[in-house]
Amino acid sequence: MGGGSNRIDSSPYNPDLESAFSVSEPLEIHSVSLPETKKTLSALKQGLGEFFFPDDPFHQFKNQPFFRKLVIGLQFLFPIFQWMSDYNLKLLKSDIVSGLTIASLAIPQGISYAKLANLPPIIGLYSNFVPPLIYGVLGSSRDLAVGPVSIASLVMGTMLKEEVSPTKEPTIYLQLAFTATFFAGVFQASLGFLRLGFIVDFLSKPTLIGFMGGSAIIVSLQQLKGLLGISHFTNQMGFIPVMLSVFKNREEGLRRPKLFWVSAAAPLTSVILSTVIVFSFKAQNQGINTIGQLQKGVNPPSYNMLVFQGPNLVLAIKTGVISGILSLTEGIAVGRTFASIKSYKIDGNKEMMAIGIMNMTGSCASCYVTTGSFSRSAVNYNAGSQTAVSNIIMALVVLITMLFLMPLFYYTPNVILSVIIITAVISLVDYGALIHLWKVDKLDFAACLCAFFGVIFISVQMGLTIAVGISIFKILIHVTRPNIVIMGNVPGTRNYRNLGQYKNAIRVPSFIVLGIESPVYFANSMYLQERILRWIREEEERATKMNESKITCIVLDISAVTAVDTSGIDALVELKRTLTKRSLQLVLANPLASVAEKLHISEAWQKVGSESIYMSIGEAISGVSCTFKGQQSQP
Amino acid sequence: MGGGSNRIDSSPYNPDLESAFSVSEPLEIHSVSLPETKKTLSALKQGLGEFFFPDDPFHQFKNQPFFRKLVIGLQFLFPIFQWMSDYNLKLLKSDIVSGLTIASLAIPQGISYAKLANLPPIIGLYSNFVPPLIYGVLGSSRDLAVGPVSIASLVMGTMLKEEVSPTKEPTIYLQLAFTATFFAGVFQASLGFLRLGFIVDFLSKPTLIGFMGGSAIIVSLQQLKGLLGISHFTNQMGFIPVMLSVFKNREEGLRRPKLFWVSAAAPLTSVILSTVIVFSFKAQNQGINTIGQLQKGVNPPSYNMLVFQGPNLVLAIKTGVISGILSLTEGIAVGRTFASIKSYKIDGNKEMMAIGIMNMTGSCASCYVTTGSFSRSAVNYNAGSQTAVSNIIMALVVLITMLFLMPLFYYTPNVILSVIIITAVISLVDYGALIHLWKVDKLDFAACLCAFFGVIFISVQMGLTIAVGISIFKILIHVTRPNIVIMGNVPGTRNYRNLGQYKNAIRVPSFIVLGIESPVYFANSMYLQERILRWIREEEERATKMNESKITCIVLDISAVTAVDTSGIDALVELKRTLTKRSLQLVLANPLASVAEKLHISEAWQKVGSESIYMSIGEAISGVSCTFKGQQSQP
Repeated sequence: MGGGSNRIDSSPYNPDLESAFSVSEPLEIHSVSLPETKKTLSALKQGLGEFFFPDDPFHQFKNQPFFRKLVIGLQFLFPIFQWMSDYNLKLLKSDIVSGLTIASLAIPQGISYAKLANLPPIIGLYSNFVPPLIYGVLGSSRDLAVGPVSIASLVMGTMLKEEVSPTKEPTIYLQLAFTATFFAGVFQASLGFLRLGFIVDFLSKPTLIGFMGGSAIIVSLQQLKGLLGISHFTNQMGFIPVMLSVFKNREEGLRRPKLFWVSAAAPLTSVILSTVIVFSFKAQNQGINTIGQLQKGVNPPSYNMLVFQGPNLVLAIKTGVISGILSLTEGIAVGRTFASIKSYKIDGNKEMMAIGIMNMTGSCASCYVTTGSFSRSAVNYNAGSQTAVSNIIMALVVLITMLFLMPLFYYTPNVILSVIIITAVISLVDYGALIHLWKVDKLDFAACLCAFFGVIFISVQMGLTIAVGISIFKILIHVTRPNIVIMGNVPGTRNYRNLGQYKNAIRVPSFIVLGIESPVYFANSMYLQERILRWIREEEERATKMNESKITCIVLDISAVTAVDTSGIDALVELKRTLTKRSLQLVLANPLASVAEKLHISEAWQKVGSESIYMSIGEAISGVSCTFKGQQSQP
Repeated sequence: MGGGSNRIDSSPYNPDLESAFSVSEPLEIHSVSLPETKKTLSALKQGLGEFFFPDDPFHQFKNQPFFRKLVIGLQFLFPIFQWMSDYNLKLLKSDIVSGLTIASLAIPQGISYAKLANLPPIIGLYSNFVPPLIYGVLGSSRDLAVGPVSIASLVMGTMLKEEVSPTKEPTIYLQLAFTATFFAGVFQASLGFLRLGFIVDFLSKPTLIGFMGGSAIIVSLQQLKGLLGISHFTNQMGFIPVMLSVFKNREEGLRRPKLFWVSAAAPLTSVILSTVIVFSFKAQNQGINTIGQLQKGVNPPSYNMLVFQGPNLVLAIKTGVISGILSLTEGIAVGRTFASIKSYKIDGNKEMMAIGIMNMTGSCASCYVTTGSFSRSAVNYNAGSQTAVSNIIMALVVLITMLFLMPLFYYTPNVILSVIIITAVISLVDYGALIHLWKVDKLDFAACLCAFFGVIFISVQMGLTIAVGISIFKILIHVTRPNIVIMGNVPGTRNYRNLGQYKNAIRVPSFIVLGIESPVYFANSMYLQERILRWIREEEERATKMNESKITCIVLDISAVTAVDTSGIDALVELKRTLTKRSLQLVLANPLASVAEKLHISEAWQKVGSESIYMSIGEAISGVSCTFKGQQSQP
């Protein structure tokens, strides 16, 4: 390999005649460009545009006649107009099948989840009627099946119960639940409207896995208490075998999409089965709790139950925000999953507004927090749903149930609801994902575990706080202790790569090439300065030991320095000064646009020396070597 | 310029004979290497080592005989042994001069700052005796002059006064102050011992500028109230002209190092002058408050005043932690500044332990929070201090004062202390820095302003919380909305650069080269996916409009993707799938070591296709073009 500066001749650059790639060949030096300087205002405008409208939602309006703009605008606000015109009988047929299927899941789930939230079972049914209708008009996902979900129900139930007893003060509890739902909706819609949807991304997948696993275990233990209390009876009645088979079928259903109907039908089947058993054996007289009388009729209005004052307002807002963000996260994640499977696009912010409006309306119509449910949407997708019409069909089925079939639930045992809940949540414990996390990313694994144990041993809110905290901490830790790598030339190329990664890469004599793999910020500027000096010390010691030529120049490859702030710039200038005192030259290679701009504005460009900033490592080494040679050849 | 794939011939690669740099020439393809896979345990060990010992503090112990190790260890723990052996009369002379100079500043400052913390003036003198002696033995900075500082005094005074009145319950207040000082010391020493020193870096310079400016204004307003109350008198006595001159001199002293003694002598001069004036005119009988009787003698022990129970414990801990981190930040920053001017190295974590132990000991000897003071260290440096002996000299002068000169302060008017405080803090308002921040970094500017107004309009603690919050938010915002740039070939080179930065760079026909300038994390994986798809849409529209060849391949330059997590990997795989469906090829260029490793472990390497991962953009384009040509030439 090339031997560095000692082989450089000072003939004029002749890149066209270069016959081999070697670090010792001089390269034509290209000056580093700066991006066009923008006025503060236009830079700000562009920055805000990128921040709030990264998806450029208005591009479809561009260059369109007025009437077309109107139509697009209507379709934008009410996605139902997008697919309505192409709707046909064939689509309707699919939607009816899938609508009926999810209804069979939604009714028992609704009753069960209402129980999880310490609410009367009828609220669960109500929540399966109004929200799906609204989502059908506003939602942009074709596969999302909305309704109450386990996590949000659990969180709402736990948080409200801490301060108000659902059995002693049922009216206040109900008022609180509706008010919290209203605030959840306001929060969700505002996130969407203010285009702050990225906030849900801070609930990273690993922390959510931990959070949901922990919640599932808490819920299951709660429900098991009730289950075990009647173990004698269930043994007699052969309940456990039934439940076991439900479990097994459900598990299989999740794994084999063709058997999805087993999983979809299991809850309704077990509800019917258990109701029939209780009815035939008159078991309700033997100490088996049943749902009992349910009032017939559609959702009564509940806007008069929203309370915006009093001592519980803070609790309602807190519960609303937390259950709101959790249900939003689930809804958005599920919507995105199925959109990506079927290759259509979902506008996250619009979805948030849809879900938010759905909950705000719901809170005025006796519904509690609803969102796109994972289990139900999976069934919906498997049953061949084509559009949001399947939600409407489901709502109609629920309507018929509420109007005519309420007496049938009289004998449904509460215990079957516990089983449905456990069955639903236990699948949230995802061992496989945990093992994957351990393999791929230890920090993700730690975040997941902390969220899991936080939920189990402290509280649901605390678990969530810990989860978000760790996610942020993970970002900070990466910024605080960034990688610095020592680089060498990859033989036969002009590329310089990490010596730890490319075993065949070779150090350039007299040079230390360091790659900084992080923005240079207040949080790491001090660390980077010290770590770079340590690298130089170690490399100098190495060069002395190996009898290599003395280090004369440090090349900092800042290709991966994606941003600097004022502290970072100060650190760079400081480093330059320190090295100059030690007669070491410092040059920079490949500053990115934003970095180059900041260096320029802050006058660090002049302080470091514009002649010390190169477009690439190769040119830097070539340029420095030539200058060096030039200096040596002077008398 | 080269015309892309259409000019490629399928002759065997011959890089040695290439005669010009052009994107159309095929390059030899080098496979992307992976870093050596390490065992989990050794990777963890290395990671923790980098995190906690980035400065490798033990390298000096390597390969040393036992006795030498012992000596180095002793020097490591007590830096006094490092310079003691080389200490001589000449150094002592310099240290005596600077010690006397800072003593003349320290005595009035000590009394004034104690007043700021609502403590008896004598505590300020005590705090100038014991802590400097301890720092002299443990500290590694040669220029740091320790003692009470304005910010920490202010914060302690404000926080404690909120709950305990210093006039009504002076003993409880004093107990609280000592206990808070003890906790400050424990906190500081623990940060150093646990090597978590990087935490002080989160108080970034811009936020500190805002925080200190706000604090200065609050303090000045407080003190001015007292000053204006006696305006009639001061007019008579010609106080204001004196003060104005003090101000002016001080300002000049900071700007012209040669006049430093003006700034250094001003406080003592004005104390002496005002004391003489009050004494001669018997002004203490005309309503001028004076310091009054001060007890002679050295620091009495105060360990019996540390209270580790009762209702105020939380307040003591809180005050200790906040004043502790603030004073630590000042001390470390000052130490680093002078170390870098004189080109010696300071071990941040060791300094923290020294400052912490100093405060823990101080709290048992009637001292309150002390640290390295900026104003005093500047004077110390200008007066030619050579080692920490100047601190010891200062302590001795303070000792003499406490033993013999206490009666002299009897007639010192309190108003002069207010003036000293205002003079000291007003220089903390740094307009110049604010303008610089506006020019270089708007977000830094915003952080600075928020901290400033937070302190002024809400509270000191809140201001600090806001400041840290914004600093963290700044990091998150960069991660949440990273840059994606479109790249082109720089003519005459194999380099690909941002088209927005290098105006002469040229797009490669049929290719879109996108550079991602950020780690790919849960917080941005969704955004990046959508933004990349938007870039592709816009570039396709552009190509159609300009009648250019159809886009067939997307090259993602991930040189600046310094890390991925599981969400990021999922997003990448997802993107590959989406593009494949649209018959677009996705290739990756230059994955860094950690990214390559993660892609490999998670099997994303196989899912993206190892043949789609290249070492550089040039090789990616060359490789893809050849494959394409090969496919076309098949029958």
